[in-house]
Formats: sequence, structure tokens, C-alpha cells
Amino acid sequence: MTLQMPHPEAAILTHRGEIVARLEQIVPGGVIHTEREMRVYECDALTLYRQLPLVVVLPETVEQVSQILRLAQDMNIKVVPRGSGTSLSGGSLPLADAILLGMSKFNRILETDFENRCARVQPGVTNSAISRAVEDHGFYYAPDPSSQIACSIGGNVAENSGGVHCLKYGLTTNNILGLEVVLMGGEVLRLGGKHLDSDLYDLIGVLTGSEGLLGVITEVTVRILQKPETARGVLLGFPTVQAGGDCVAEIIARGIIPGGLEMMDKASIDAAEAFQPCGYPRDAGSLVIVELDGTQAEVDVLIERVAAIALEQGATSIKVSQNEAERLRFWSGRKNAFPAVGAIGPDYLCMDGTIPRFQLSNVLARMDQLAAQYGLRVANVFHAGDGNLHPLILYDSSKPGDSEKAEAFGADILCLCVEVGGVLTGEHGVGVEKRDLMDRMFNEIDLQQQERLKCAFDPAHRLNPGKVFPTLHRCAELSRMHVHNGQLPFPDLPRF
Amino acid sequence: MTLQMPHPEAAILTHRGEIVARLEQIVPGGVIHTEREMRVYECDALTLYRQLPLVVVLPETVEQVSQILRLAQDMNIKVVPRGSGTSLSGGSLPLADAILLGMSKFNRILETDFENRCARVQPGVTNSAISRAVEDHGFYYAPDPSSQIACSIGGNVAENSGGVHCLKYGLTTNNILGLEVVLMGGEVLRLGGKHLDSDLYDLIGVLTGSEGLLGVITEVTVRILQKPETARGVLLGFPTVQAGGDCVAEIIARGIIPGGLEMMDKASIDAAEAFQPCGYPRDAGSLVIVELDGTQAEVDVLIERVAAIALEQGATSIKVSQNEAERLRFWSGRKNAFPAVGAIGPDYLCMDGTIPRFQLSNVLARMDQLAAQYGLRVANVFHAGDGNLHPLILYDSSKPGDSEKAEAFGADILCLCVEVGGVLTGEHGVGVEKRDLMDRMFNEIDLQQQERLKCAFDPAHRLNPGKVFPTLHRCAELSRMHVHNGQLPFPDLPRF
Repeated sequence: MTLQMPHPEAAILTHRGEIVARLEQIVPGGVIHTEREMRVYECDALTLYRQLPLVVVLPETVEQVSQILRLAQDMNIKVVPRGSGTSLSGGSLPLADAILLGMSKFNRILETDFENRCARVQPGVTNSAISRAVEDHGFYYAPDPSSQIACSIGGNVAENSGGVHCLKYGLTTNNILGLEVVLMGGEVLRLGGKHLDSDLYDLIGVLTGSEGLLGVITEVTVRILQKPETARGVLLGFPTVQAGGDCVAEIIARGIIPGGLEMMDKASIDAAEAFQPCGYPRDAGSLVIVELDGTQAEVDVLIERVAAIALEQGATSIKVSQNEAERLRFWSGRKNAFPAVGAIGPDYLCMDGTIPRFQLSNVLARMDQLAAQYGLRVANVFHAGDGNLHPLILYDSSKPGDSEKAEAFGADILCLCVEVGGVLTGEHGVGVEKRDLMDRMFNEIDLQQQERLKCAFDPAHRLNPGKVFPTLHRCAELSRMHVHNGQLPFPDLPRF
Repeated sequence: MTLQMPHPEAAILTHRGEIVARLEQIVPGGVIHTEREMRVYECDALTLYRQLPLVVVLPETVEQVSQILRLAQDMNIKVVPRGSGTSLSGGSLPLADAILLGMSKFNRILETDFENRCARVQPGVTNSAISRAVEDHGFYYAPDPSSQIACSIGGNVAENSGGVHCLKYGLTTNNILGLEVVLMGGEVLRLGGKHLDSDLYDLIGVLTGSEGLLGVITEVTVRILQKPETARGVLLGFPTVQAGGDCVAEIIARGIIPGGLEMMDKASIDAAEAFQPCGYPRDAGSLVIVELDGTQAEVDVLIERVAAIALEQGATSIKVSQNEAERLRFWSGRKNAFPAVGAIGPDYLCMDGTIPRFQLSNVLARMDQLAAQYGLRVANVFHAGDGNLHPLILYDSSKPGDSEKAEAFGADILCLCVEVGGVLTGEHGVGVEKRDLMDRMFNEIDLQQQERLKCAFDPAHRLNPGKVFPTLHRCAELSRMHVHNGQLPFPDLPRF
């Protein structure tokens, strides 16, 4: 696949030896520069695009991160930060002329504080390691991307990751209390902490979801939650995707916010059951997975209500988990849906778009038409409660033209999401994958204000360039546009 | 009281007549410029400071707002945006050389959308008008500052307002889905909407709590919630403030997150009961008000648990509301605590600081010492679950030196909050009140990064100057500091 990226700077490439030596001075033994060893860093989980970095450095201290960024500034080198490399939109894709700054050695849990319901961790700690570290006290960390055993919390912050429990418990941004971040000039900022913090501008919010373009995260304070007294899963089978979608809308409309509310179409159900049987109704046209959590009394009431709604909406099967093992089995099919779909076709491309809930049936019908038009199959899993779709486009990269077709189909799906009032991404970020579609969603004024914010952090555009923004203006140019706004038409306004 | 504010620009004052005429051209009949009529705008609810504006303009359309900001830019005039003027930190305090941009005529509810659980409203709509507009369908808007019948949603966004239900349902920032905002150059940005939105930098988060320094909000899309099936209030009386504080900590530590969890000390209880009897235990040293909401079954279980915890912690009285009227009466004392305290002394100063919950007893004991030292009385109401304190300092502005003493006492309380690991504000904002304390909380690097963000929106510092930041650097200077970072000491780093 070809991808338009900023042209590598020849001057940087010729100075590679010097740069490696300088980095070795800062992080002795922590620099990777042979092609063979760098190969593992050549892509993230969006495997469509591959690129070797200039050099990989794996710092262990904040001081080293700060020195690396200062070196990059002094030598005018680009930097791509990287967590576990599980991003699905190419956010941590290396650049040929950029240092790849790997945060994998920042892997310690620094503090657990149950009184203040938080944990202070380094960014390389995996998502599930946080929950494991606090589970003895009955706590957990709520956002749970499917890659949670591998993905790092730093990467979760950079991408504002979601998961099946985000409908009730929020995205990453709703679960972060504090950050330590190193700016491109080497300055270290500590933001927020254990307290409720509403002073000054919400920099934590800005950094969460910033896809590595604003700063390098070196510490994260997350909110942890007490595990609900009980949680039970309910599998609802429906004859069609439409009926399942209507049931989801009705559950929400009746004011029930389940811990999880997911949906899978027939193709995904079949793939999941073939991969590992988990009790899904094989004859159903769609499956709705509902998790209800809270006190025993509350969950009993909610299960009854959800079952009643499902029957009204034409459910053909209802199965309630009878114990924790069964609840986890219900989830296993959904959580393994991507590898399961991977197992039925040579390749798949996982998309991520969000739509207003009531557009679900319409979008699915149009997606079917597109699939027929492109001659490709698509399997669908959704965070249905959030309106967040994950169509998995099946293709065969060994067939000439198939990858390009898959990519074009994916872009059409995202444009469809925007057309019906949705957005280009739910939780996977923009990265390189959706970069060139940004102008479908945002106009020039929107993008310029976003760029001004980028300039407030990284005026020389050294951090993760080529990602997110279709084009980046020079910062000085943007501020000129802002101050002298002559281009806006206000003909009636008299001038001095 | 004296307050250091930017010196009024003589050039602007001499052009006042021209400015009024220009504004009249943009908003015919919507300009207020006589001293008598402008007097109502001279302060906000922090009545310590008063200042007449240059002129008041009350636009009715987004186009007019845009034209006013362009005029301000072209003529280099400052602008202070204002909602209902109920801010408690002087955020909407006028300036002698600034246009006061009043948004009170933006008072329409534009759309209610129950399927997507949101409402689209103009910024001048009051907080409680939103709940009223959706209550027939069983919905409400969760954040509920005590001033909710008067304060506007635009002001709530500007100050990131809280309220007694924010422990469970979040501050304003957690309940905003979309904004329309006019930038200082007159550009109109539409941010977010009805969908889950995680594209690009979180500008909605940045604008929420920005205290009118970044842009003028012209439309707000809020999340509305279905009213819980039931809600019941519980009054818990304790012999001491310490015992009440311990009970609050224990409720949270057991994983219960009530809809509301408030605390009042003896002085506040007495004031509230004298103002309007609402069933508070007159003999208690502290009162904890708990609201439990959810399904009937859940609430029944939670009331039992809370009562059991309260008894363990030495509660001397427990009273559970038996009907909706009684629940509202339980809240009325808390919601009227400020006017109630106002009724027992000639003047009071309401402070707003946040501390880690476990510091509650310590901070209260030290506050008592400070009160003795200053010879002033203090009454305390808390959003206890959040660790957000509202000490009300009683003083007599007719006594020479009393106002200054109250102000100094207030500053000492806020510094104490920071000293124990808390922050300067919970929900009232920084405004002018806490501006000069910001360096107790933030270092130069922190403040400079915040200023760079301000520059990304308003590089000429025309919007609400003199608020929030103790000093504002020129934007060009900040970006120089950022790009050439020579001042940071990294002596080991070899140079090219």
C-alpha cells in the first residue's frame, strides 16, 4: 500500500550515525539501530503500512525522555512516540527520518491508593495490569479495549481508547485524573493529581486523544472503581440486524444504561463460534450482548426489564449467565472477534466509525450495498450502545488490487458515517488511516483552530508529523491568519 | 476593596462615543451606555469588587456576536463576556475599557432530542430551564449549582460549574456534548454534537472552564439523563465534624457513590434552620446529607447500607425522606445555605477550595485556628464526597479593616488547601479572586504552557483580560521561549 508521508529529510539521514551516538550517550544500551532489530517496530496493528524508523530509543527515566526531546529539538529531528504498538489507525507508524521513542521500559505501577480510588502508573504498564494490581482490594480500571492484555495505558491516553464498558463508565478521558508529560522543549509538566481538579485549561483533556502530537506521556494517574457487587451477561438473539438494533435503541430509550451493550452480525457470530465456542445462538441474524452490573437487587430487576424489552422487540433467544465463568465466556467471543474474523479470511481491515444510534439499520443496509459493489465481505461488531461501529472488511492481500479495494471500501464506510451525522472515529484515532478524510468532517476554520492548539505545544511540528492532520500550516502563518482576519466577509462593518 | 487590574487604556476611553455608535450599528437598540443603566452590570456574585464597564451590548444573533468581536479586534478593544453574572470569583467583573458582551438575549431552547438524550440550547438559558423543558418526558440536566434558577448554561460552561449531584453525575464538562463558539477573529466554530466524538483535540474540554478567556459561547448541546426511578434523601446527624467526615470517607471507601453527599457544620445547620426550617438535627455538630437514587430495589438496599455505616461511625440521628416533598425539603437548607448565612451576619465571603477527602478533619481544625486568629466566624458547607469545601467567612464591611481581614483569611484557607495536596478551586473558577494565588499552585512552566494555549485562541489577549492569569506574557515571547529553550539546564548534552 502506498501512503503519502512527509518526504524524509536527507540531512537527517546523513547524520544518522551521529544521532545514534548522541542517543547512546543519553540512554546507554537503550538504542536499537540495526535493520533486523528495528523490524519489529515497522508497523502498529494497522498492518497495511510499514516503515522502518531512523532509530529506536528506549529510555527508562523522565530525565532521559527530556534529554532526547531536547536533542531532537537542537538537531531538528522528528520524534514518533510509541507504547505497545497496538494502535489500529497507524498512530505509531514510524517515519524514516524520525526517532522512534519507545516507552516500553516505563512499566512500573508506582502507587495504588484505595482511599482516593486511584493508581499512579508509568505509561508502559498494560491496561489489564492496572486492574490486576488493584483486584485484591476489589477494584478495577474501567476502560477495556479488546487489546487490553497488550496495549499500554500511555497508548490508551494518546488514543482515548474505549472498550465494551465505555457506555456506562466512559472513555479513557473520563477515567484519567493526572498526567506527567514532557513537552517538545524538554519541559516536564505535571497535570492534575488525585483531587478533583478544575483549575485552568483542561490540558489533561487536550492530551487525552492527542495521538502523540503534543507531548510524551511519562506518568498516568487513573481513577479506579470498586467492582460492582455482581455483573451478569445476557445474550439476546434476533432474526435480523435491524431487530437487534431496534432492541438496543429501546433499552437506551427506557433509561437503562447497561455496563456493556454490544452487537454482532451473523458473519461475526459465525466467526466467533468457529474460533472458540462461547454459547452464541448460531441461528440468529444478530446477537445483542448486554451486561448488567450493580447490586444483586438492581441487577435482578434490570435483567427482567431487558428480557421484557427483548421479547417485545422479537428476540428469538434469551440466555442469562448463571455464573462468573459463563459471563466471561459470553464476552470471550466478542473480545476475540477480530482474531476470529482474521481466521476466516486471509486479511481483514478493521474500521471504526460512529453514528447516531437511530441510523444503525440504515447504515448497515447501505454497507451491504457497498460490499456487493466492491465484491468484498464485511463482518460487523459494534459498541451498539455508543453507536460505534467496527466493520471488518475481509480481503486477500495476495490478490492484486484487493488491498486497494478494501481501503476504498473502508473510506466509503467512514464517509457514510459522517454523511448520516456521525464521526470518522470512535476510539481508534485518526492516525494515518483517516488523516486524508479529515476534510470530509472538518472545515478550514475547524482545522486551523486545531492546528493553533498543536502549535501551542509543538510549534516546529516535530512530534509525530504526518499523522492526524491532512496538512499542517506553519504556526506563524496561522497566527497571522488569526490576527488579521481580513478574509472574513463582513461587508457592512464600517472601517475607521 | 482594591484589586490590581490592567490600567484602562486612555485611547479607548476617548473613543467611547464612536464605539457606542459602532455597536449601535451592529445591534440596533441593544446597547446600554448610561451610568444608571450600566450599574446593574458592575459586579457579579463576588460583590467585593465593582467596576462599571465601558459599554454594555446585548446581541441576539451569532452574526452580531461575530461582528462585535471583529469590531473589537479592528479597534483593539477588550471584551468581557457575561452570562447571568452569578459567578462567585469575579469572572464576569467588567473592565473600565472593555465592552461587556451580555448573552442574556440568547435565551431559547432550540431542540430537545430524547432519542439521543440531549438538548440544544442558547447560552443564556438558565440551568433549571433545561431540566424544566425536558421533565415532561422524564429527563433532567444533572449539574445543579445552587444558583441554578438564575445562572445560565453558558456561564456554567465557562466556569465548569458543579452542584450537589456532581459526585455521581460529573461536573459541567462531563455533561456537554457540543458547543458553538465565536473566536476573537469572528470565526464561528461548531464543536461536537449529538454523537460520541473523539476526533481531534478536545476543544470542548478546553472551552469548558475557560472562564471567558478563549471565545464566546453561542450554543450548547447538553446531555440529558432519564430521571432515576426513585431518589430518597437521608439526613445523618453526628456529634462532631470529624465524625461526619469519617462517615463520608467510609461511604465512599465501601464503593457507594450516592447521587449527592454533602456536609454542613453546626454554624451552617443553625443558619439554615433559622432561615427556613427543613428538618435538620439542631443538636448535631455536623450534618451529612445523602441522596440515593436508582431503581426502588437498589435504593432500598443502599439506604440500609448507608444507615449501617452511619451507626458504626457514631451517628446520633438518621432520618430518611418519606416522600418527594420531604426529599426536596432536606435539600432546601443546603441549597439556601449561602443566603441563610448571609442573613445571620452583615456580609460573608464564600470560598471554594478542594482537598483530598482524608484531609477533611485536619483542614477543618486548622480553619478553626485561623478563624480564632483573624477574629472572624466561619460557617462550612461542603460537597463532601468530592472534597470540595465552601467556607463562608462572616464579616462586616462597615467595620474598617474587616473586609481586608476576610480576604486575607480566605487566601489563607486556599493556600491551606494547596498545602495539603488540594487545589484552589472546585467549581467557582479562578476569576479575579484567586488570580494572584495561582503561583502557589502552578510553577512557571505550567503557567507558560497554559498561556500558550490561551495564545492559540486569543493572541492579542483581548478576551476577559486581568482574569485567571497573574501575568500574561506576549504570545510571540512565549513561542520564543518554547523554540529556543536555552534556559533549561542540560549541561551534559554535547552541542553540534
